[in-house]
Amino acid sequence: MNLSERKKHLIVHGEAPYNAEPALDRLRAAFRTDADDFYVRSHGNLPEIDGGSYRLAIRGSVSTPLDLSIADLKARFDIVTVTAVMQCAGNRRYDMQAVAPVSGDPWAPGAIGNADWTGVRLADVLSAAGIDENADLHVAFECHDIVEGEDYPYGASIGLSKAMAPETLLAFAMNGKPLEPEHGFPLRAVVPGFAGVRSPKWLASITVQDQPSANPMQADDYKLFPPDVTEETADPAKGHTIETMPLNAAICEPSPGAKLKVGHNTVRGYAVAGDRNVVRVDVSCDGGRSWSQAQLEAEAKSPFAWTFWSIELDLNPGEHELVARAWDEAGQTQPSQPDDTWNYKGYLMASWHRVRVTAD
Amino acid sequence: MNLSERKKHLIVHGEAPYNAEPALDRLRAAFRTDADDFYVRSHGNLPEIDGGSYRLAIRGSVSTPLDLSIADLKARFDIVTVTAVMQCAGNRRYDMQAVAPVSGDPWAPGAIGNADWTGVRLADVLSAAGIDENADLHVAFECHDIVEGEDYPYGASIGLSKAMAPETLLAFAMNGKPLEPEHGFPLRAVVPGFAGVRSPKWLASITVQDQPSANPMQADDYKLFPPDVTEETADPAKGHTIETMPLNAAICEPSPGAKLKVGHNTVRGYAVAGDRNVVRVDVSCDGGRSWSQAQLEAEAKSPFAWTFWSIELDLNPGEHELVARAWDEAGQTQPSQPDDTWNYKGYLMASWHRVRVTAD
Repeated sequence: MNLSERKKHLIVHGEAPYNAEPALDRLRAAFRTDADDFYVRSHGNLPEIDGGSYRLAIRGSVSTPLDLSIADLKARFDIVTVTAVMQCAGNRRYDMQAVAPVSGDPWAPGAIGNADWTGVRLADVLSAAGIDENADLHVAFECHDIVEGEDYPYGASIGLSKAMAPETLLAFAMNGKPLEPEHGFPLRAVVPGFAGVRSPKWLASITVQDQPSANPMQADDYKLFPPDVTEETADPAKGHTIETMPLNAAICEPSPGAKLKVGHNTVRGYAVAGDRNVVRVDVSCDGGRSWSQAQLEAEAKSPFAWTFWSIELDLNPGEHELVARAWDEAGQTQPSQPDDTWNYKGYLMASWHRVRVTAD
Repeated sequence: MNLSERKKHLIVHGEAPYNAEPALDRLRAAFRTDADDFYVRSHGNLPEIDGGSYRLAIRGSVSTPLDLSIADLKARFDIVTVTAVMQCAGNRRYDMQAVAPVSGDPWAPGAIGNADWTGVRLADVLSAAGIDENADLHVAFECHDIVEGEDYPYGASIGLSKAMAPETLLAFAMNGKPLEPEHGFPLRAVVPGFAGVRSPKWLASITVQDQPSANPMQADDYKLFPPDVTEETADPAKGHTIETMPLNAAICEPSPGAKLKVGHNTVRGYAVAGDRNVVRVDVSCDGGRSWSQAQLEAEAKSPFAWTFWSIELDLNPGEHELVARAWDEAGQTQPSQPDDTWNYKGYLMASWHRVRVTAD
């Protein structure tokens, strides 16, 4: 069964590269998102890699370069599981278009998923290769996929402190099963709390170096700019490299335009806060004039997993604008409108999620 | 020279307990705030402690209870210096009053300071006492000051993970000099990124325990509530315990009501982001309709120190509303208005800082 058939329930933004996301009610049905329901973000081809002959190369500023098979990783290092969200920096981009046009696929709030990632700590592998933990170093990932329309493979990097953090993995399994090809088989990085761009799939090599990756994915793309910067005026060197993802919340049920019954209705969704805990979710049925607090379902007590929430709302006959917003442990909340955070690439859309419904 | 004389340039909110903050131009004059310019937040008396006979007790779930003099701390553990902000959870409370009355002193944006704190890592002391690092434990501080109008000493606690973080200190010096009495002589906790309430002064003992401190400062006060909760309806068990401080920015120069010259004027201030880096500060001279980006002066590259910023603005004749807002590394910014974050105790005021001036 090919990818499109296996994922025929997904909303497809592009076939080549393949980019697709699940419907939100399906996404909200399980705390751990099934691999087949998990959004797929590809920048190029889907590499076909033989897991048996696969080797990961560790190079650069290390005392002992390594070449490791999946069996080597499993034998030499502790195997750990981290429950963490993976999300695209363009998640919810669709809603940013309301301010002004943006480039990139118009993702709904489904470019996100939450899974048990199993693998080895990147820190353990780097320590085995021998690194200077106190140096101002970067850990660059080079991959097997060739970026669409270009002649170079995908690549990105993270700083050494995040690479050495206990949550950062080289993962070979997702929800207890080997990675599916579209999720990075046989090995991917999982950098919890960071945008998906920094968790490359189909890893070929890892290089410890003085500078961030020179790959255009790191050097030019996935940079955040103020609203007055355009594609023509953007200087990548001045943009903020997107890493930690912002506080966000989405209403997964009901869907926009839903016809609901008058009276009690359940509203459900998810909330995330990058590397912080979500401590509160407010829901409004009048466009944000009044709010009630949702119940939080804290199944995995970790800032890197998402928080599911739900609330019973009593709806009068007529149209309603449902709104959700989250609060993080620092007492911060989301902006009401996307105007101030608008950027021409449509990254980090995180203002209040609004869903119009009718009760009759 | 007594405290009030030595600090006669401060704005005094109360003499007993002594609570005072510096003028903002004086605060902005030095990256490391001088002890005499540093805000003072007291909940009770100013203890007079003999440094020579002083002992810190380590008790509770430890294998080896300890009694440590300052000399013991210096001899047995690595001495480290961390540059970090200390700020009151009520910093900028004055501006929250515009929404509705709040309790507590009406702090301007001066209930904050930045210093080099020197001491030993709390982690090292706890490790020497023997703790189970993986347990869900709390580290409770008991102090020598008696809370005003009560018969119990000040106390608060933090979770074990923050207690074991490398930035968390037991500090005996501030900007290279022994702590002044009003800043906690001879020993205080410094918990960078957290509200000042969790960095107690005049430490008497530290207890490792299963539960947060039962002291009313921890159990009842310094909790964050939604706007609909009042003093009468507040259930402390349902409030969010304030720890990490939110993203914030303040204009330190010019002052509110300043008469400026037409043309170029310099606006200066500080920005903080709890445990994150500040990556951008925007300044407006038209109440937030248009923005320019300030220059960041990153003297200490640490998320726990503050970020000084400045910008030259060209002012036309007339009244102007200067506004400042910061952005953190997760792409989050501050709310424009305090309405949504208003709470009856006036904690965590962090909406756009607005200063009205006239140019002619």
